Amino acid sequence: MTSTVTHEDMGTQVEEVLRQRFTAHSENAQAYGSEFASLWRSAATHALGGKLVRPRLLLDIHRALAPVPTIEQASAAIDVATHIELLHYAFLLHDDVIDGDLTRRRGPNLIGALAAESPGSTEEASLHWARSSAILMGDLLLSAAVMGFARADLSQPTRLRLLDLVEQTILETVAGEHTDVALSHGIVAPDLHTVLNMSVYKTATYSFSLPLRAGAMLAGASSSAEDALHLVGRHLGLAYQLQDDLLCVFGDHRVHGKDAFSDLREGKETAIIAYARSTPAWSRIERAFGSDDLTMQQATEIRDRLRECGAEAFVTGLIADQREAVQTLLSEAEASGEISADAAATIAAVATRLDGRRS
Amino acid sequence: MTSTVTHEDMGTQVEEVLRQRFTAHSENAQAYGSEFASLWRSAATHALGGKLVRPRLLLDIHRALAPVPTIEQASAAIDVATHIELLHYAFLLHDDVIDGDLTRRRGPNLIGALAAESPGSTEEASLHWARSSAILMGDLLLSAAVMGFARADLSQPTRLRLLDLVEQTILETVAGEHTDVALSHGIVAPDLHTVLNMSVYKTATYSFSLPLRAGAMLAGASSSAEDALHLVGRHLGLAYQLQDDLLCVFGDHRVHGKDAFSDLREGKETAIIAYARSTPAWSRIERAFGSDDLTMQQATEIRDRLRECGAEAFVTGLIADQREAVQTLLSEAEASGEISADAAATIAAVATRLDGRRS
Repeated sequence: MTSTVTHEDMGTQVEEVLRQRFTAHSENAQAYGSEFASLWRSAATHALGGKLVRPRLLLDIHRALAPVPTIEQASAAIDVATHIELLHYAFLLHDDVIDGDLTRRRGPNLIGALAAESPGSTEEASLHWARSSAILMGDLLLSAAVMGFARADLSQPTRLRLLDLVEQTILETVAGEHTDVALSHGIVAPDLHTVLNMSVYKTATYSFSLPLRAGAMLAGASSSAEDALHLVGRHLGLAYQLQDDLLCVFGDHRVHGKDAFSDLREGKETAIIAYARSTPAWSRIERAFGSDDLTMQQATEIRDRLRECGAEAFVTGLIADQREAVQTLLSEAEASGEISADAAATIAAVATRLDGRRS
Repeated sequence: MTSTVTHEDMGTQVEEVLRQRFTAHSENAQAYGSEFASLWRSAATHALGGKLVRPRLLLDIHRALAPVPTIEQASAAIDVATHIELLHYAFLLHDDVIDGDLTRRRGPNLIGALAAESPGSTEEASLHWARSSAILMGDLLLSAAVMGFARADLSQPTRLRLLDLVEQTILETVAGEHTDVALSHGIVAPDLHTVLNMSVYKTATYSFSLPLRAGAMLAGASSSAEDALHLVGRHLGLAYQLQDDLLCVFGDHRVHGKDAFSDLREGKETAIIAYARSTPAWSRIERAFGSDDLTMQQATEIRDRLRECGAEAFVTGLIADQREAVQTLLSEAEASGEISADAAATIAAVATRLDGRRS
């Protein structure tokens, strides 16, 4: 059976499939007690609130490389895109447990919501209940994601190639998160090289390389095309993370909606900080950096010093470097015929969109 | 290529495969920093110290149902058995994070070892580093386990059947753990029904039903044989957990090697406690039950009262009930031809071995 599917349908279908999955899980969970069913419902609320950046990236590249997909191709793309979103949410949950975060964007995250609703006898007990629940839900979604890739309706060679890609992706993401924790405890030195590698592994690999490579693979692209997209994804993802770092310190908090200056209060080792450490300004920044009770005035002072010492400009330059690297890679891949002009243009458009974001 | 493999070889091979896997992972991990490679090496030390109860159970039933396996069958059995052990260790790691445990048997667990080695500035920082590392290593092993089942060299229908089994197993294990946490916070009522269900879900499903069912599946058994083994596994596993509960309170700590009376100090809601709650003795037990600084004398007094009120005898009776249920199920399955006499005898021998254990 061969037919075509519009791209708009596919984006909507990812959301619909996710919603159906969570509903089915919540209903099945009732057999194990109402608390467990309630955990599934809460997880659904939080998991479904995202912008689906990763599934949309996969579907964008898939459409560019296979403009007229068969029903089978479209359905496999939606399936894999859906499981990348589940993987993303599993990572987020464990990341929030590790970082002790209770909020995401403007509201409570799953842990914050569970702790607030919990009838725990103390705040500590409520937090333990909420974090334990998040560890367990993360385990369920992580295994559901891997199961989803394993069951995707693909030829055996493509499925094995996809599983290799997912395994490598999970390894790099976890390695990046592990380095991030090591940085936060001063267990590894916060030099620029380490911080940039950490960002690539923790964020770029699964958020950008994975959807691009999986989308290409499902569209029947060659493994050399996939290799090119791997590099493109790393640069795009690094640019995305560096922008996030800049927004948290220099952005307009009323627009991006994140906790103002949270990176400065948490003492997060970003590229901005790694650069500042190498300048004479650091001695005046480090006093208040990472202090739990950082005042708005202290934070604003640090921000101004980071700007004065050239850290903002340096990281802005790094982002431009990534953008340029993406362009070069796309031109080369297009010239060598590894990817189509349409695919190159699609990714260039994603890069432009990311570049202008304010949140 | 058809040949035969002895059972002893297979047991040794599981250990050897596990060792090789961890060595390869540790070497690959070096690319992501020495801390990450070191985490893999520590995880190997702790994961390889087990008795391989679950892989051996799988191999026992596999041998009973397929006495003369082909090389392919033997290799698939070893492969799946190995990944069940990885799944077990992933569950253990997250369980230890949730329970705040730093020891297992007589020594430090992975978290205890990482915290002791960590150069963290405070005890809290060292524990955070160690627990974060354990969450992340658990994620890696959980996904490695699911990947292993997904890649097993089986026919597509058998692989999908195995994946369904593993998915259901992970769901029940996590649901059981979630109920255990809810019990520890008084979020669900600690009645006997809830406590027994929790034990079946949290322990019996993955430790007994999974290896028995997977072993049968790989040996080509029917799905009705598998259903019978599912029930057998639940009863065996419940008996095992109830014995564990009895050993912790009434056993000889010099022999079983666990922390003396840890369940009483932690206020663990076991079947022993659920029974005691329904007797007049409870008012005198509950005062010190679950107190962090429970003295040896208080613990001994609680133990004596649990014995006097009939809780020890009650749980001993429950274990006998499970043993009887296993025998009945095995006789029926043998009579109906669902499993061979040899398979029934193999499982009966496992039950007898478990029955006599002191640690």
